[in-house]
Amino acid sequence: MSLQPPALDPKSLAPYTGCGYPEPYRARVLPREVRRVGDALGLTRIGINVTTLAPGRESSMRHWHTHEDEFVYVLEGELLLRTDAGEQPLTAGMCAGFPAGSRDGHQLVNRGARPALYMVVSNRDPEDMAHYSDADVDLMWNAPHARGRMTRRDGTPY
Amino acid sequence: MSLQPPALDPKSLAPYTGCGYPEPYRARVLPREVRRVGDALGLTRIGINVTTLAPGRESSMRHWHTHEDEFVYVLEGELLLRTDAGEQPLTAGMCAGFPAGSRDGHQLVNRGARPALYMVVSNRDPEDMAHYSDADVDLMWNAPHARGRMTRRDGTPY
Repeated sequence: MSLQPPALDPKSLAPYTGCGYPEPYRARVLPREVRRVGDALGLTRIGINVTTLAPGRESSMRHWHTHEDEFVYVLEGELLLRTDAGEQPLTAGMCAGFPAGSRDGHQLVNRGARPALYMVVSNRDPEDMAHYSDADVDLMWNAPHARGRMTRRDGTPY
Repeated sequence: MSLQPPALDPKSLAPYTGCGYPEPYRARVLPREVRRVGDALGLTRIGINVTTLAPGRESSMRHWHTHEDEFVYVLEGELLLRTDAGEQPLTAGMCAGFPAGSRDGHQLVNRGARPALYMVVSNRDPEDMAHYSDADVDLMWNAPHARGRMTRRDGTPY
Protein backbone atom coordinates (compact mmCIF):
# COMPACT_ATOMS: atom_id res chain seq x y z
CA MET A 1 0.00 0.00 0.00
CA SER A 2 1.44 3.37 -0.92
CA LEU A 3 2.03 6.05 1.67
CA GLN A 4 -0.32 8.99 2.12
CA PRO A 5 0.74 12.56 2.98
CA PRO A 6 2.39 13.65 5.21
CA ALA A 7 4.39 10.42 4.65
CA LEU A 8 6.38 9.80 1.48
CA ASP A 9 8.65 7.21 -0.08
CA PRO A 10 11.31 9.26 -1.89
CA LYS A 11 11.66 6.48 -4.48
CA SER A 12 8.11 7.26 -5.63
CA LEU A 13 9.17 10.72 -6.89
CA ALA A 14 10.23 11.39 -10.47
CA PRO A 15 13.84 12.61 -10.34
CA TYR A 16 15.20 15.90 -11.64
CA THR A 17 18.01 14.83 -13.95
CA GLY A 18 19.24 18.24 -15.11
CA CYS A 19 21.97 20.50 -13.77
CA GLY A 20 22.01 24.29 -13.59
CA TYR A 21 25.72 24.52 -14.36
CA PRO A 22 27.01 25.53 -17.77
CA GLU A 23 29.56 23.30 -19.48
CA PRO A 24 32.23 22.16 -18.81
CA TYR A 25 30.91 21.75 -15.23
CA ARG A 26 27.63 20.05 -16.08
CA ALA A 27 29.45 17.05 -17.53
CA ARG A 28 31.31 16.60 -14.27
CA VAL A 29 27.96 16.21 -12.43
CA LEU A 30 25.61 14.28 -14.73
CA PRO A 31 24.21 11.66 -14.62
CA ARG A 32 22.73 12.62 -11.24
CA GLU A 33 19.16 12.08 -10.00
CA VAL A 34 17.74 14.58 -7.52
CA ARG A 35 14.48 13.77 -5.73
CA ARG A 36 13.02 16.94 -4.24
CA VAL A 37 11.56 15.43 -1.11
CA GLY A 38 11.02 18.66 0.85
CA ASP A 39 9.16 20.30 -2.02
CA ALA A 40 6.95 17.22 -2.43
CA LEU A 41 6.05 17.41 1.27
CA GLY A 42 5.14 21.11 1.10
CA LEU A 43 8.14 22.30 3.13
CA THR A 44 9.25 25.87 2.36
CA ARG A 45 11.62 26.77 5.23
CA ILE A 46 13.97 23.83 4.72
CA GLY A 47 15.09 22.12 1.52
CA ILE A 48 15.53 18.34 1.49
CA ASN A 49 16.85 16.48 -1.55
CA VAL A 50 17.70 12.79 -1.88
CA THR A 51 20.28 12.40 -4.62
CA THR A 52 21.79 9.50 -6.57
CA LEU A 53 25.24 10.20 -8.00
CA ALA A 54 26.80 7.96 -10.65
CA PRO A 55 30.35 6.58 -10.37
CA GLY A 56 32.95 9.14 -11.40
CA ARG A 57 30.66 12.13 -10.91
CA GLU A 58 30.77 15.20 -8.61
CA SER A 59 27.78 16.35 -6.52
CA SER A 60 28.58 19.98 -7.40
CA MET A 61 31.66 22.06 -7.92
CA ARG A 62 33.41 22.82 -4.60
CA HIS A 63 31.46 25.74 -3.08
CA TRP A 64 30.18 27.46 0.07
CA HIS A 65 26.95 29.36 0.85
CA THR A 66 26.62 32.84 2.30
CA HIS A 67 23.22 32.49 4.06
CA GLU A 68 22.33 28.80 4.16
CA ASP A 69 23.59 26.06 6.45
CA GLU A 70 24.09 22.87 4.44
CA PHE A 71 24.13 19.29 5.72
CA VAL A 72 24.84 16.04 3.86
CA TYR A 73 24.21 12.47 5.07
CA VAL A 74 25.36 9.40 3.15
CA LEU A 75 22.63 6.76 2.75
CA GLU A 76 24.25 4.20 0.40
CA GLY A 77 27.65 3.73 -1.19
CA GLU A 78 30.74 5.82 -0.56
CA LEU A 79 31.52 9.45 -1.33
CA LEU A 80 34.74 11.39 -1.03
CA LEU A 81 34.25 14.70 0.78
CA ARG A 82 36.63 17.42 -0.45
CA THR A 83 37.16 20.48 1.80
CA ASP A 84 40.07 22.52 3.15
CA ALA A 85 40.69 19.58 5.54
CA GLY A 86 41.54 17.44 2.49
CA GLU A 87 39.74 14.36 1.22
CA GLN A 88 37.76 12.10 3.56
CA PRO A 89 35.76 9.00 2.52
CA LEU A 90 32.20 8.97 3.88
CA THR A 91 30.23 5.73 4.00
CA ALA A 92 26.57 5.11 4.87
CA GLY A 93 25.67 6.73 8.18
CA MET A 94 28.37 9.39 8.03
CA CYS A 95 27.66 13.07 7.47
CA ALA A 96 29.10 16.56 7.16
CA GLY A 97 27.89 20.09 7.86
CA PHE A 98 28.76 23.48 6.42
CA PRO A 99 27.65 26.56 8.38
CA ALA A 100 26.42 29.55 6.38
CA GLY A 101 29.27 31.99 5.72
CA SER A 102 32.06 29.51 6.45
CA ARG A 103 34.41 29.90 3.46
CA ASP A 104 35.52 26.27 3.42
CA GLY A 105 34.16 25.02 0.10
CA HIS A 106 32.89 21.44 -0.19
CA GLN A 107 31.93 18.87 -2.77
CA LEU A 108 31.23 15.12 -2.82
CA VAL A 109 32.91 12.93 -5.43
CA ASN A 110 31.84 9.37 -6.21
CA ARG A 111 35.09 7.49 -6.84
CA GLY A 112 33.38 4.16 -6.15
CA ALA A 113 32.16 1.53 -8.62
CA ARG A 114 28.45 1.91 -7.84
CA PRO A 115 25.96 4.78 -7.48
CA ALA A 116 25.96 6.63 -4.17
CA LEU A 117 22.80 7.85 -2.43
CA TYR A 118 22.83 10.84 -0.08
CA MET A 119 20.57 13.43 1.48
CA VAL A 120 21.17 17.18 1.31
CA VAL A 121 19.46 19.56 3.78
CA SER A 122 19.52 23.35 4.05
CA ASN A 123 17.52 26.24 5.36
CA ARG A 124 16.16 28.53 2.65
CA ASP A 125 17.23 32.16 2.43
CA PRO A 126 16.50 34.39 -0.59
CA GLU A 127 19.72 36.34 0.10
CA ASP A 128 21.85 33.25 -0.42
CA MET A 129 24.79 33.22 -2.85
CA ALA A 130 27.26 30.42 -3.59
CA HIS A 131 30.96 31.01 -4.14
CA TYR A 132 33.23 28.45 -5.76
CA SER A 133 36.59 27.42 -4.32
CA ASP A 134 38.71 25.78 -6.98
CA ALA A 135 40.87 27.83 -9.31
CA ASP A 136 39.69 25.86 -12.34
CA VAL A 137 36.01 26.62 -11.66
CA ASP A 138 35.15 30.04 -13.08
CA LEU A 139 31.63 30.09 -11.66
CA MET A 140 29.44 32.11 -9.31
CA TRP A 141 25.80 31.68 -8.33
CA ASN A 142 24.21 35.08 -7.81
CA ALA A 143 21.29 36.19 -5.72
CA PRO A 144 19.12 38.12 -5.23
CA HIS A 145 19.94 40.56 -8.06
CA ALA A 146 20.18 37.68 -10.52
CA ARG A 147 18.60 34.88 -8.56
CA GLY A 148 19.59 31.43 -9.69
CA ARG A 149 21.82 32.69 -12.46
CA MET A 150 25.31 31.44 -12.99
CA THR A 151 27.97 33.91 -14.05
CA ARG A 152 31.71 33.86 -14.40
CA ARG A 153 33.63 35.23 -11.44
CA ASP A 154 33.90 38.63 -13.17
CA GLY A 155 30.09 38.82 -13.40
CA THR A 156 29.76 38.17 -17.13
CA PRO A 157 27.00 35.71 -17.98
CA TYR A 158 27.41 32.30 -19.55
CA MET B 1 40.91 6.76 11.10
CA SER B 2 38.37 9.09 12.63
CA LEU B 3 36.71 11.85 10.65
CA GLN B 4 37.78 15.47 10.91
CA PRO B 5 35.41 18.48 10.77
CA PRO B 6 33.41 19.32 8.74
CA ALA B 7 32.78 15.54 8.55
CA LEU B 8 31.27 13.58 11.42
CA ASP B 9 30.20 10.06 12.32
CA PRO B 10 27.05 10.55 14.43
CA LYS B 11 27.88 7.37 16.37
CA SER B 12 30.93 9.18 17.80
CA LEU B 13 28.70 11.65 19.68
CA ALA B 14 27.61 11.13 23.28
CA PRO B 15 23.81 10.92 23.28
CA TYR B 16 21.36 13.12 25.14
CA THR B 17 19.26 10.65 27.07
CA GLY B 18 16.89 13.03 28.85
CA CYS B 19 13.46 14.32 27.91
CA GLY B 20 12.03 17.79 28.52
CA TYR B 21 8.53 16.47 29.17
CA PRO B 22 7.09 16.22 32.64
CA GLU B 23 5.64 12.90 33.78
CA PRO B 24 3.57 11.00 32.78
CA TYR B 25 4.77 11.84 29.24
CA ARG B 26 8.49 11.36 29.86
CA ALA B 27 7.99 7.67 30.60
CA ARG B 28 6.28 7.23 27.21
CA VAL B 29 9.45 8.50 25.46
CA LEU B 30 12.45 7.16 27.43
CA PRO B 31 14.71 5.33 26.83
CA ARG B 32 15.59 7.44 23.79
CA GLU B 33 19.05 8.53 22.61
CA VAL B 34 19.34 11.84 20.75
CA ARG B 35 22.59 12.68 18.97
CA ARG B 36 22.71 16.40 18.23
CA VAL B 37 24.50 16.23 14.92
CA GLY B 38 23.72 19.75 13.69
CA ASP B 39 24.95 21.34 16.92
CA ALA B 40 28.16 19.28 16.76
CA LEU B 41 28.78 20.54 13.23
CA GLY B 42 28.24 24.20 14.21
CA LEU B 43 24.94 24.58 12.35
CA THR B 44 22.61 27.24 13.77
CA ARG B 45 19.97 27.78 11.06
CA ILE B 46 18.91 24.14 10.88
CA GLY B 47 18.62 21.52 13.60
CA ILE B 48 19.64 17.90 12.82
CA ASN B 49 19.21 15.11 15.35
CA VAL B 50 19.80 11.39 14.87
CA THR B 51 17.67 9.52 17.36
CA THR B 52 17.44 5.93 18.61
CA LEU B 53 14.03 4.98 20.02
CA ALA B 54 13.52 1.83 22.09
CA PRO B 55 10.74 -0.67 21.38
CA GLY B 56 7.42 0.46 22.83
CA ARG B 57 8.42 4.12 23.03
CA GLU B 58 7.07 7.32 21.43
CA SER B 59 9.33 9.92 19.73
CA SER B 60 7.28 12.72 21.31
CA MET B 61 3.69 13.35 22.11
CA ARG B 62 1.62 14.05 18.97
CA HIS B 63 2.29 17.74 18.16
CA TRP B 64 2.73 20.42 15.49
CA HIS B 65 4.96 23.51 15.25
CA THR B 66 3.92 27.08 14.56
CA HIS B 67 7.13 28.39 12.90
CA GLU B 68 9.32 25.41 12.09
CA ASP B 69 9.09 22.93 9.24
CA GLU B 70 9.89 19.44 10.52
CA PHE B 71 11.12 16.45 8.53
CA VAL B 72 11.75 12.87 9.66
CA TYR B 73 13.61 10.12 7.76
CA VAL B 74 13.77 6.51 8.95
CA LEU B 75 17.31 5.05 8.91
CA GLU B 76 16.84 1.66 10.59
CA GLY B 77 13.93 -0.36 11.94
CA GLU B 78 10.26 0.51 11.62
CA LEU B 79 8.22 3.34 13.09
CA LEU B 80 4.51 3.97 13.07
CA LEU B 81 3.65 7.51 11.99
CA ARG B 82 0.49 8.82 13.65
CA THR B 83 -1.24 11.87 12.07
CA ASP B 84 -4.75 12.90 11.06
CA ALA B 85 -4.31 10.50 8.09
CA GLY B 86 -4.19 7.63 10.61
CA GLU B 87 -1.32 5.25 11.28
CA GLN B 88 1.25 4.42 8.61
CA PRO B 89 4.31 2.15 9.06
CA LEU B 90 7.57 3.73 7.87
CA THR B 91 10.59 1.55 7.17
CA ALA B 92 14.18 2.53 6.32
CA GLY B 93 14.28 5.02 3.46
CA MET B 94 10.78 6.40 4.05
CA CYS B 95 10.10 9.87 5.38
CA ALA B 96 7.46 12.43 6.36
CA GLY B 97 7.25 16.21 6.44
CA PHE B 98 5.24 18.66 8.52
CA PRO B 99 5.06 22.26 7.28
CA ALA B 100 5.17 25.01 9.91
CA GLY B 101 1.66 26.02 10.94
CA SER B 102 -0.05 22.89 9.61
CA ARG B 103 -2.24 21.75 12.48
CA ASP B 104 -1.93 18.04 11.76
CA GLY B 105 -0.05 16.74 14.79
CA HIS B 106 2.45 13.91 14.39
CA GLN B 107 4.41 11.41 16.42
CA LEU B 108 6.44 8.27 15.73
CA VAL B 109 5.82 5.12 17.76
CA ASN B 110 8.16 2.14 17.83
CA ARG B 111 5.87 -0.90 17.93
CA GLY B 112 8.66 -3.13 16.61
CA ALA B 113 10.87 -5.56 18.55
CA ARG B 114 14.14 -3.68 18.02
CA PRO B 115 15.36 -0.10 18.36
CA ALA B 116 14.55 2.27 15.50
CA LEU B 117 16.95 4.92 14.18
CA TYR B 118 15.71 8.09 12.49
CA MET B 119 16.79 11.60 11.60
CA VAL B 120 14.84 14.74 12.52
CA VAL B 121 15.43 18.03 10.67
CA SER B 122 13.96 21.49 11.18
CA ASN B 123 14.69 25.13 10.59
CA ARG B 124 15.22 27.14 13.76
CA ASP B 125 12.90 29.98 14.67
CA PRO B 126 12.86 31.65 18.11
CA GLU B 127 9.12 32.36 17.70
CA ASP B 128 8.30 28.67 17.49
CA MET B 129 5.68 27.04 19.73
CA ALA B 130 4.46 23.44 19.79
CA HIS B 131 0.83 22.48 20.29
CA TYR B 132 -0.26 18.98 21.27
CA SER B 133 -3.05 17.11 19.51
CA ASP B 134 -4.29 14.29 21.68
CA ALA B 135 -6.95 14.86 24.29
CA ASP B 136 -5.00 12.87 26.90
CA VAL B 137 -1.91 15.10 26.54
CA ASP B 138 -2.31 18.22 28.67
CA LEU B 139 0.86 19.85 27.42
CA MET B 140 2.07 22.98 25.62
CA TRP B 141 5.57 24.12 24.71
CA ASN B 142 5.73 27.88 24.94
CA ALA B 143 7.96 30.42 23.25
CA PRO B 144 9.20 33.10 23.26
CA HIS B 145 7.63 34.39 26.47
CA ALA B 146 8.58 31.19 28.28
CA ARG B 147 11.04 29.65 25.86
CA GLY B 148 11.42 25.94 26.20
CA ARG B 149 9.04 25.69 29.11
CA MET B 150 6.29 23.15 29.26
CA THR B 151 2.95 24.17 30.68
CA ARG B 152 -0.49 22.69 30.89
CA ARG B 153 -2.90 23.82 28.18
CA ASP B 154 -4.33 26.44 30.53
CA GLY B 155 -0.86 27.98 30.95
CA THR B 156 -0.20 26.74 34.47
CA PRO B 157 3.34 25.37 34.94
CA TYR B 158 4.30 21.81 35.74
